[in-house]
Amino acid sequence: MTALDVRSVERQSACSIQATLDIVGDRWTLLILRDLFRGVRRFSAMQHDLGIARNMLADRLSRLTDADVVAKVPYQHRPVRYDYVLTPKGLDLSNSLLALMAWGDRWCHDGDAPTVLVHADCGTPLEIATRCPACDEPVSPTRIRSLAGHSDPPPGGEFAAAGAIQANRQHPTNGGDL
Amino acid sequence: MTALDVRSVERQSACSIQATLDIVGDRWTLLILRDLFRGVRRFSAMQHDLGIARNMLADRLSRLTDADVVAKVPYQHRPVRYDYVLTPKGLDLSNSLLALMAWGDRWCHDGDAPTVLVHADCGTPLEIATRCPACDEPVSPTRIRSLAGHSDPPPGGEFAAAGAIQANRQHPTNGGDL
Repeated sequence: MTALDVRSVERQSACSIQATLDIVGDRWTLLILRDLFRGVRRFSAMQHDLGIARNMLADRLSRLTDADVVAKVPYQHRPVRYDYVLTPKGLDLSNSLLALMAWGDRWCHDGDAPTVLVHADCGTPLEIATRCPACDEPVSPTRIRSLAGHSDPPPGGEFAAAGAIQANRQHPTNGGDL
Repeated sequence: MTALDVRSVERQSACSIQATLDIVGDRWTLLILRDLFRGVRRFSAMQHDLGIARNMLADRLSRLTDADVVAKVPYQHRPVRYDYVLTPKGLDLSNSLLALMAWGDRWCHDGDAPTVLVHADCGTPLEIATRCPACDEPVSPTRIRSLAGHSDPPPGGEFAAAGAIQANRQHPTNGGDL
């Protein structure tokens, strides 16, 4: 492995998006998590809802349990049967699933959401947004910059402004950067 | 296909999370998008950064281009060579990637973020949150309820409160629902 390869591997492993995807970056896994958020707790119900093979569902649930994203809670003892429930770590994936859902509402259903998520307290449809707590306002991707955290090498070209294209495809402009 | 199967398929296709995952629900695709947000625009640079096989990278970029998430912009004409850039549809995936990144920061790096995203205007670290615009406050997953949108069958058991487990694993409680 060359020095460049080592640096690349180190950079990859330090990336939080990659770390997240190592745990949940699989289409079935994300659909299982969606079902858990919806209240589907039983193996057979998930299998029916998703149309997934038993061994694949068992594999994904086992990985999620190992990663402490999902916990097994017995609901019957002879024979033992389990509910699958989200742990606090799993519940914290709510923003990720909501952001994926909001994107699908806008771009796959023309903004006409099949399901509307509302605030339990007042019934208002919810929003998911990237915000600046100091300016107290939503921040568009083009106004996002990245800095190296504590453990990373100093930022360089790797965090150049992103290659984003705006309304006119003939004039690509800089976008946000992760 | 039974009536139940048909209903299940209809429900699946109407789900915006599933619709999104049909386009970007693949680990390589999400890592390619991350690179595009970071400003990696060239095929060879992505290949080097990700350590992905040429044919797999070409396949994923082709799918993203077909889905209008990414556009090819020539930067050289003889021979023709392209930059890959995010379209407005692609740029709108920013919240999804940021939410996955924030989760990785919290749960895979003990909150010690390898990369910090800040507001370009003031340098303040950004937050991603689900908010109620009426109450003007962040909303936790346990205070989220779902309603059927225009085109969906009326909500039933499928949107029961989610199986989430809080701090004490022995006492599962209701969570949010997507």
